[in-house]
Amino acid sequence: MKRALVIGGNGTLGKAVVAKLQEYSVEVITAGRQSGDYHVDMTSTESITSLFETVTNIDYVIVAAGQTHYAKLEELTPENNMISVQGKLLGQVNIVLIGQHYINDKGSFTLVSGIIQDHPILKGASSAMVNGAIDSFAKAAAYELPRGIRLNSVSPNLFVESAEKYKGVFIGFNPVPVERVANTFIQSALGIETAQTFKIY
Amino acid sequence: MKRALVIGGNGTLGKAVVAKLQEYSVEVITAGRQSGDYHVDMTSTESITSLFETVTNIDYVIVAAGQTHYAKLEELTPENNMISVQGKLLGQVNIVLIGQHYINDKGSFTLVSGIIQDHPILKGASSAMVNGAIDSFAKAAAYELPRGIRLNSVSPNLFVESAEKYKGVFIGFNPVPVERVANTFIQSALGIETAQTFKIY
Repeated sequence: MKRALVIGGNGTLGKAVVAKLQEYSVEVITAGRQSGDYHVDMTSTESITSLFETVTNIDYVIVAAGQTHYAKLEELTPENNMISVQGKLLGQVNIVLIGQHYINDKGSFTLVSGIIQDHPILKGASSAMVNGAIDSFAKAAAYELPRGIRLNSVSPNLFVESAEKYKGVFIGFNPVPVERVANTFIQSALGIETAQTFKIY
Repeated sequence: MKRALVIGGNGTLGKAVVAKLQEYSVEVITAGRQSGDYHVDMTSTESITSLFETVTNIDYVIVAAGQTHYAKLEELTPENNMISVQGKLLGQVNIVLIGQHYINDKGSFTLVSGIIQDHPILKGASSAMVNGAIDSFAKAAAYELPRGIRLNSVSPNLFVESAEKYKGVFIGFNPVPVERVANTFIQSALGIETAQTFKIY
């Protein structure tokens, strides 16, 4: 039985990914900042290392979480921009950099970026920046992974499930059901592709 | 007479950009870590702020520098990856975040990324990551800049002038003359476009 580690498994997206993995008879271990089977602070390399030391025999690592800072550009500063850099960009990248030494042969990493790098929204520059970084990192790093390990990113649109809450921000975006997004995480994690960005727009 | 601040004006690219700006009768001020009219440490927000406090009345800010760390993925760590994050990504982003409050009306920012986000090379994952971030940041942030200020990034191929030195790394890349790249920096800085990535591949 294959085993997946889903980081951020208790959010809207994470829960949908977990359900989808179970449809495919994959054993799921979840980790999160305050919930999940294990606790992990993505901003701490010690915490990520500890997670991989503790949770062994993992085939699929899926990240469905990452904090970004939304602010008008005039109010975006070198300091508050670091919330996105640490919380979403380096958090995910470090999971790959550390996890590459632990994950099973022929395993996979799936990271999450987002649509606003392609279609910016007001206050979204910091988030767009990290999304672009994640996709470019996944594309470049994938080719250097050993032992048949794969790496992709998934860039989702606004979810149908969050559309009412965010429709004033994601103006005119056509939301997608989170179940569709979760399915694409499965495609990335269990399929054969690598070095790809799966855009669900 | 319009005034340009070229950060990294003493490198191969910077010198070509300076020469091209002078062809267009733009007054050029250069800044660099160890050379140029003014010294600036792009990894320090205090140093960037001090530069903009000192060098006033700037129409065009052009960045032609940024340090990245090249390492095999297995040797890339959360720690050495920060060389690229601080030296190229945050350096450039912070120049925009701080400089937006100083640059003249209808001014422009031009940042530099690079081809390996689109065509990865061995040991280039960290560099590809920051290149993708810079392009996505430029695209998103540009739409929020006030007072007619524009923002673009330029993503160059390997330079003809460096091709012999790097041909074992940039295998099979078709190098471009640095003069062509410098011309594109002028197109970005003095033209009308914004939120664009100019790819010179």
